[in-house]
Amino acid sequence: MEHLHALIMAGGTGTRFWPASRRERPKQLLPIAPGSKESLLESTIRRILPMCAEERILVVTGQRLLDATRASLSAFPKVTVVAEPLARNTAPCIGWGTALIARRDPRAIVMALPSDHHVKDEAAFRAAVERAAGSAEAGPVTTLGIQPNRPETGFGHIEASDEVSPGVRRAVRFVEKPTRERAEEYMQSGRYFWNSGMFFYRASVMLEAIAVHLPELAKGIARIETAAQRGPDAEDAETRAVFPTLPNISIDYGVMEKLELIHVVPAEFGWSDVGSWQAAWELGSPDAAGNVADAGAVLVDASGNLVRDLSSRKRRAIALVGVRDLCIIETDDALLVVPRERAQEVRKVVEELERRGAEDKL
Amino acid sequence: MEHLHALIMAGGTGTRFWPASRRERPKQLLPIAPGSKESLLESTIRRILPMCAEERILVVTGQRLLDATRASLSAFPKVTVVAEPLARNTAPCIGWGTALIARRDPRAIVMALPSDHHVKDEAAFRAAVERAAGSAEAGPVTTLGIQPNRPETGFGHIEASDEVSPGVRRAVRFVEKPTRERAEEYMQSGRYFWNSGMFFYRASVMLEAIAVHLPELAKGIARIETAAQRGPDAEDAETRAVFPTLPNISIDYGVMEKLELIHVVPAEFGWSDVGSWQAAWELGSPDAAGNVADAGAVLVDASGNLVRDLSSRKRRAIALVGVRDLCIIETDDALLVVPRERAQEVRKVVEELERRGAEDKL
Repeated sequence: MEHLHALIMAGGTGTRFWPASRRERPKQLLPIAPGSKESLLESTIRRILPMCAEERILVVTGQRLLDATRASLSAFPKVTVVAEPLARNTAPCIGWGTALIARRDPRAIVMALPSDHHVKDEAAFRAAVERAAGSAEAGPVTTLGIQPNRPETGFGHIEASDEVSPGVRRAVRFVEKPTRERAEEYMQSGRYFWNSGMFFYRASVMLEAIAVHLPELAKGIARIETAAQRGPDAEDAETRAVFPTLPNISIDYGVMEKLELIHVVPAEFGWSDVGSWQAAWELGSPDAAGNVADAGAVLVDASGNLVRDLSSRKRRAIALVGVRDLCIIETDDALLVVPRERAQEVRKVVEELERRGAEDKL
Repeated sequence: MEHLHALIMAGGTGTRFWPASRRERPKQLLPIAPGSKESLLESTIRRILPMCAEERILVVTGQRLLDATRASLSAFPKVTVVAEPLARNTAPCIGWGTALIARRDPRAIVMALPSDHHVKDEAAFRAAVERAAGSAEAGPVTTLGIQPNRPETGFGHIEASDEVSPGVRRAVRFVEKPTRERAEEYMQSGRYFWNSGMFFYRASVMLEAIAVHLPELAKGIARIETAAQRGPDAEDAETRAVFPTLPNISIDYGVMEKLELIHVVPAEFGWSDVGSWQAAWELGSPDAAGNVADAGAVLVDASGNLVRDLSSRKRRAIALVGVRDLCIIETDDALLVVPRERAQEVRKVVEELERRGAEDKL
């Protein structure tokens, strides 16, 4: 598809992958998936290259992450990396990024993708993307809806009605993270899908939708476009001036939920949002005892553990005796030990390090 | 006591403190006790200095450990360190060491001490040592018997009869590690004490006892003494020639159990043979949740853990969330995670590393 462009949202920060993730080295820049040498961002790009040339990929990150992000993409020299002057949720990111793409290609069809998800079946992913991009080309903003394989209270869901064309359904509504009971109903019904955060749209359609539903954002984008005609310095200055004035709102809440027509392409491709070390364990190849361990680990009567040596030397002997279901994460300057089922609580460690002012560990 | 000498047995190797202990850096050369900056050997020496000047302290180690042992004792320049050409259990060590001491001081009273034990109440220890040395000065080989504070199946016991003088009892017999049931009986009886492996004797008495009970050892010692009259090179060569011929036998089995008269000084001074990481945890100062952790550890809902950062940089953030009763031991090139109650199984890690030929980790 000649006009297919990618807008990759790579400004995320977070604490759930401490000690691997740090303020200046967030999850998307790390090879979180066990056995992978690519960062999640690199994987995201490589995964779409068969359908979207590097020149048509735009990565939007944060000012603080710009250098690290560029450095991590040295294998993709033609990918464009830009930085928001400050983080303002997904609506400004998508609005600005879409405008940048539209400037180069007014007929662009954009796939807006998170940079930090994992996809197991890449062929199935690309088939779904082609279907969704085809739907978007016809007009409607289109999302990928992930077929639930478990009741899941951690994701927003999309309710879909009947098919409007093969593999494409009309979205009825977006629903917030459901209760456990509701999540089970949703899974049984076959009409609900997880909101993957992957959107497909004509750039012109999205910019019009923003003009209607987020006029302040549209006005800010227009100022930047006007400044850009005076050259890159003026554009840069205007972008810095505009961003702090933009609404701090998500694209779901600010635009998607207000659109009259949305299509959803149900898909199943081994998707994970890689939300915690527990999720990282799920992505690994377990040994007979359920351990997902980096090479060289010595495991004696140990089961169900995730063992990652993310230190730069990687010559550490990590030995476990008689422990089960732990995450053990080693970096050059830190070590984490936490039960898999409590992996979400890693943020408490980060909070404690903040309290102690341990800047070099954050 | 003018003629009191110390013979410190520091040739031990072992695997129970991996990854801190290695072939070339065994337990006695490490600061195993949490909060201590001294190695166990340094502590052993410092503890006796008030009653035994450096010049009268002889450390016997193994050839392989000679340099490391000397280096670790730089604070005690007048202590003599010698190395057995090869390890031959405790009888040759004590026989040879005692002969070396007797050569310098024929009237020597010797305290033979392990180098890798921990003593909490050093004043009580020194009081017991003075009593035992006094008993030995009067003739009988004398041991320190530790007052049991629990039934203990891991130590040999000494049965004692009535006092022969204040605080000194006659030993009836040595018994091997008892069953659990027997150990409880022993503790109840008040007549059994743990064999601490600390012996006190006149050098002349021990050398005579060796002549009677281990004549081969006595013969070997005599050859070394004769060679020594021709100078240090001849002595060194003869020592190397003699050692392989010496009986591989413990002083308990070879001599102590055969003596007709042995005294035992019952004592209580917070003794530990520091047999595993579990014992190291017991020596530490626990926080309110029972954690013994090096400074800087981040503990979130963690209890009963031992956390040691023995890496040279010591600037690692070690974070535990929601785990209990683990030993977590970090060094420059290794990490161990094991439940405290399974700390003895660390040897299995060492066995596995041997199997893999991981020489740099052994």
